[in-house]
Amino acid sequence: MEAYLDNSATTRCLKEVVEVVVNTMDVDYGNPSSMHMYGIKAEKYIKEAKETFVKLLKCQEKEIIFTSGGTESNNMAIIGAVMANKRDGNHIIVCCVEHASVKQPIQFLEEQGFRISYLPVDQNGFISLDDLKKELCSETIFVSTMYVNNEIGTVEPIEAMAQIIHNYNADIVFHVDAIQAFGKYKIYPKKMGIDLLSVSGHKIHGPKGSGVLYIRDKVKVRPFVLGGGQQKGMRSGTENVPGIAGLGVAAKLVYANLDEKIDHLYNIKEKLIEAIKTIPGTTINGKIDRDSAPHILSVSFEGIRSEVLLHALEDKGIYVSSGSACASNKPGLSSTLAAIGVDKKLLDSTIRFSFCFDTTFEEIDYCILTLNELLPMLRKFVRS
Amino acid sequence: MEAYLDNSATTRCLKEVVEVVVNTMDVDYGNPSSMHMYGIKAEKYIKEAKETFVKLLKCQEKEIIFTSGGTESNNMAIIGAVMANKRDGNHIIVCCVEHASVKQPIQFLEEQGFRISYLPVDQNGFISLDDLKKELCSETIFVSTMYVNNEIGTVEPIEAMAQIIHNYNADIVFHVDAIQAFGKYKIYPKKMGIDLLSVSGHKIHGPKGSGVLYIRDKVKVRPFVLGGGQQKGMRSGTENVPGIAGLGVAAKLVYANLDEKIDHLYNIKEKLIEAIKTIPGTTINGKIDRDSAPHILSVSFEGIRSEVLLHALEDKGIYVSSGSACASNKPGLSSTLAAIGVDKKLLDSTIRFSFCFDTTFEEIDYCILTLNELLPMLRKFVRS
Repeated sequence: MEAYLDNSATTRCLKEVVEVVVNTMDVDYGNPSSMHMYGIKAEKYIKEAKETFVKLLKCQEKEIIFTSGGTESNNMAIIGAVMANKRDGNHIIVCCVEHASVKQPIQFLEEQGFRISYLPVDQNGFISLDDLKKELCSETIFVSTMYVNNEIGTVEPIEAMAQIIHNYNADIVFHVDAIQAFGKYKIYPKKMGIDLLSVSGHKIHGPKGSGVLYIRDKVKVRPFVLGGGQQKGMRSGTENVPGIAGLGVAAKLVYANLDEKIDHLYNIKEKLIEAIKTIPGTTINGKIDRDSAPHILSVSFEGIRSEVLLHALEDKGIYVSSGSACASNKPGLSSTLAAIGVDKKLLDSTIRFSFCFDTTFEEIDYCILTLNELLPMLRKFVRS
Repeated sequence: MEAYLDNSATTRCLKEVVEVVVNTMDVDYGNPSSMHMYGIKAEKYIKEAKETFVKLLKCQEKEIIFTSGGTESNNMAIIGAVMANKRDGNHIIVCCVEHASVKQPIQFLEEQGFRISYLPVDQNGFISLDDLKKELCSETIFVSTMYVNNEIGTVEPIEAMAQIIHNYNADIVFHVDAIQAFGKYKIYPKKMGIDLLSVSGHKIHGPKGSGVLYIRDKVKVRPFVLGGGQQKGMRSGTENVPGIAGLGVAAKLVYANLDEKIDHLYNIKEKLIEAIKTIPGTTINGKIDRDSAPHILSVSFEGIRSEVLLHALEDKGIYVSSGSACASNKPGLSSTLAAIGVDKKLLDSTIRFSFCFDTTFEEIDYCILTLNELLPMLRKFVRS
């Protein structure tokens, strides 16, 4: 049996996604900038994908920019918005447990002379709204937070944050990294007070190399990739038609019957939680109720190095992640786990299970069975 | 009959490219950063693509960076290298007929305070080496040129430029935009004195959204997209495995039996040239011998607006470009054509025919026949 439980690292493309990618590579392969029929056909795929996002995010067409992925979306949002608004101030607020694709652009801005405040999180990964209030000042131009934490599944209080930020100063740009949230939550940026929203294709069964940056109308963002003026000058370069078309199809399909799918995810997550609770020496990190993300479960296994457990599970056909896989293959210890106060000796003993809509109860049963088989043996024989 | 003669705008993906893209979306869909088998398999595709480029460019593995396309490669090369070397000087030299994905980043740097010298070109699109020599100064840190002009097919004297530049100062970074040259010429950057080389996937029957930036060992380039540290920190973001794998396959296949293919391209180009020479009121722009690129032919048709001719040809199943299609769909008049001194009244009467290895003599015959049919009629009835 096989169980791919690493869906927060990446997902398998839906067959409908593969189909449209093949079609745009082999048949409708034109350059959207071409003035003839091949160009017009290619352009239609982009328009269709855009319309999907317009419906899902309840936004305007001009607010959707297609990028090469979540990392580019975050880079463009952060560097682009801060540079475009730097005359208004030099202070940035960001959560301390952000993904590297947020942390690194923020650090770049720090090197350029911007002052950065890092908001701490509690033992469940939550930002405190009081801390946010305290940090806001007349120099603040930009606030960034993730929607769902990629390692422990914490769901940050986005709407409350937006209210606090914009009540303080309506011109502060509020960026939300929704890479682990999009496809799991109904997100309406305008209603929720989100100015910029980053989305990745390959986390929702779409193609790698595809992403979206939602930019609320009238929010100033400097283009990040410069050139031929595609996408109204906001993102130059011949549009990745297969990637964009595939992303559109994926987004449309993952949001169909979303409530049922999310219920299924919680059911399988809860099944795994119940089983893990009965295993001695295990700790679940973050919240476990339905206020946490439905597809992510972080578990620390006392006395077992995560790499050892990961490979033992792999040997049985179960694929998981140690910490976050979205970084280079040589991850250090997770700063998220450290930030929520996970015991030092458990930092390197933590596994992330992450599910998708197609994950079955049988796979979870098999995972539970395998954990119960492996853990006593590993604890007995493997020096941690 | 149909004849797609817009291959410099974009190309149809090879079936082997489509196959590997499907495989990496549907079967080997892992995240290369994942430590388990799915990650390792994904990583292998990247390694294989890298090895293809290592062989083709006769370079080292660490010198190859995969990007989201030619535009990102040019942005990264220009902004990344200039920012990393700005302590050495503030002067940049660039050819005046560059693609927008070079022009725009250069203009961005001009706004940051760098001084830019634009090299003029002659009536065939050639940079003068004397002009280059004159512009070099102690403040020069960066020179950029295209290898093959995307509108008229001029092949710039890359090796001679490199020699002049590096004889003057070995530390000056020499960037070559090879987006229209790669796949048509054997390019060995080290031997030729090229420090940075931009390549695009979709111009060589590979996927849109894929590209390469070759960075010669020890040349300093600041990373452009920041985040999880993928590609040794030089280009963060989960690697676009399908795009990279497809690009690798395309590169390998286009370079197989290259000489024969190029000979075929010249043969069909020469056939079209001979026919066009017999049509009154036509001018071929740029050189027409085998020193010009084999796949690009720019022709001005007196008294006919290019858009009118483009759509008349389209109506007959022939797809071409007016000027360069790699910009937004609302192209102004071509600055390349203006720069080589094309008569003002012909600027808006110019069509680019661009071929690929699969273009047949039958397609060219059909194109010639159609031109001979259409031109007298259009000249008679359509006001230009």
